[in-house]
Amino acid sequence: MSNMNRQWTLAGRPSGFPEESNFSLVESAVPDPGDGEFVVKVEAWSVDPYMRGRMNAQQSYSAPVELGAVMEGGTVGRVVASKHSDYAEGDTVYGKFGWQEYGLCDGTGAYKVDPDFAPMSAYLGVLGMPGLTAYFGFLEICKPKEGDTVFVSGAAGAVGALVGQLAKIHGCRVVGSAGTDEKCAYLVSECGYDAAFNYKTDTDYVAKLKELCPNGVDCYFDNVGGAITDAVLVSLNDFARISICGQISQYNLEKPEMGPRLVWALLVHQSKMEGFLVFRWLERYPEGIKQMGEWVKEGKIKYREDIIDGFENMPKAFIRMLHGENKGKQSVRA
Amino acid sequence: MSNMNRQWTLAGRPSGFPEESNFSLVESAVPDPGDGEFVVKVEAWSVDPYMRGRMNAQQSYSAPVELGAVMEGGTVGRVVASKHSDYAEGDTVYGKFGWQEYGLCDGTGAYKVDPDFAPMSAYLGVLGMPGLTAYFGFLEICKPKEGDTVFVSGAAGAVGALVGQLAKIHGCRVVGSAGTDEKCAYLVSECGYDAAFNYKTDTDYVAKLKELCPNGVDCYFDNVGGAITDAVLVSLNDFARISICGQISQYNLEKPEMGPRLVWALLVHQSKMEGFLVFRWLERYPEGIKQMGEWVKEGKIKYREDIIDGFENMPKAFIRMLHGENKGKQSVRA
Repeated sequence: MSNMNRQWTLAGRPSGFPEESNFSLVESAVPDPGDGEFVVKVEAWSVDPYMRGRMNAQQSYSAPVELGAVMEGGTVGRVVASKHSDYAEGDTVYGKFGWQEYGLCDGTGAYKVDPDFAPMSAYLGVLGMPGLTAYFGFLEICKPKEGDTVFVSGAAGAVGALVGQLAKIHGCRVVGSAGTDEKCAYLVSECGYDAAFNYKTDTDYVAKLKELCPNGVDCYFDNVGGAITDAVLVSLNDFARISICGQISQYNLEKPEMGPRLVWALLVHQSKMEGFLVFRWLERYPEGIKQMGEWVKEGKIKYREDIIDGFENMPKAFIRMLHGENKGKQSVRA
Repeated sequence: MSNMNRQWTLAGRPSGFPEESNFSLVESAVPDPGDGEFVVKVEAWSVDPYMRGRMNAQQSYSAPVELGAVMEGGTVGRVVASKHSDYAEGDTVYGKFGWQEYGLCDGTGAYKVDPDFAPMSAYLGVLGMPGLTAYFGFLEICKPKEGDTVFVSGAAGAVGALVGQLAKIHGCRVVGSAGTDEKCAYLVSECGYDAAFNYKTDTDYVAKLKELCPNGVDCYFDNVGGAITDAVLVSLNDFARISICGQISQYNLEKPEMGPRLVWALLVHQSKMEGFLVFRWLERYPEGIKQMGEWVKEGKIKYREDIIDGFENMPKAFIRMLHGENKGKQSVRA
């Protein structure tokens, strides 16, 4: 075990899409655990869209990462030293240790995972934040009913691919949008989507929704925002439920984009739009992990991962994910 | 009793604000009731913002009024002839008889009201659709809690003035916007609002909300939409609830107005926005009328009416209400 800890820190705040120069690779000593603490050697790091928001100076849904601070993020690794009564050397744990090779923790935000049930990377994806986001954010807010039509934007992302499968488990018709023909084919052939369209080439979204959701939209799980959401709003059925998981089309803008005012659509269709952060259901995570794990074992939920090797490639992995170049849940392996 | 029935019909579809020339006053015979029907001589007519939507050719939340058809609307009157077992001559009833002096009904959408408890016009206001809209639309969707800050747009309207009082009954701080200084004074002096501002003269809505809602907005009851709603969205507290009752700023536009995309605000504040039509709670109307009536008797809810005499003045009353010239619930008395 090396006694140096490599860390990716925030070197500068991007305007628009981040670049590798926004990050610095620095070294520091591996920390020693104090009483009630443990140290984890990270073996897998998640990169996720929300991290883009943390790079801005202004408050988003949590505080920004300070310049010079380690980038935040979810990770899985093994305990290598412990003075914490609940964690022993060799335990496999999930924790928000961020973009570094060793993390120090007092137990806050951490939980043990079973490395024999699924590979570590799964606890960053289908059995981690994206899986829990799909499970709670779709089922609790959209409350899908058999026969409902569900539309998912950003459907080929780590969360969207799972939402479609949850919709099928609940007897819905499910349609998605994604940014390449290959992703659309993946949604239909592997994720059980009934239909999908490429939003970059099929740009009349209202017409496309009319074609693929001929009975209107009952549930909308939105990762993207912008013009696709506009089109869904004018395609709603009465009492539709919209779960706002992300607004990735808006994250890299210098200032808020203008769009047509469409609140009237919620009024005339008596529909509900609700934003959420998965942490709201923190106390129910064990339920979500157990149920998603069972569906994975039963073959009802499939997942795809896009794993890049090497901690030094964290910024690269993050940026390609923001550009939509990943195929499945993007993570980095030590 | 005259045996002619005067009716206001839709003569033409307005673009922008309606004009009197959009309506025609026509005469027809007073209908005779068939088996299971009764005839009502209307004594009070409601005019409401939603009627503007019915004048458009395209479907809003219900079908448009056809050209040449009688304008729709809620009314209160007395049964003058009946072959319906539940309704006898002399009964006072609420019904959607529209802009005409006599209405024929098989009981659908009608219910008896007590003329000794409140004047007929009250059943078009505080104990009618506006009162029920405030009662269910605010309490069921915003779910106000003691100590919450509630903001109401269009606060001096028939619904808004009641929402503020309901908020006070529930222990909230309540702030509203209205279109004249006089209306703002009325909100504070008579409706129990803690503060109100004139949106036509105080145009930095974000700054005004910061001043009047220093702890942020927990509940928003929106009658107006547009720029005021934009300002509220960036002033939300976490887990805020927004009830969309109307979008009066948008009804008279030729095409959808553009505005900043602000769905991200629902995401970062984990907030909910829901549109409703009061008919959703039709089966619970008796509960709402009873509770609002009790609060009126206890002096906890006050209301103001703006009554114009003469059926011939229906279009005038409707148009002045759309321009915000009424003071309290606008209705017309025979």
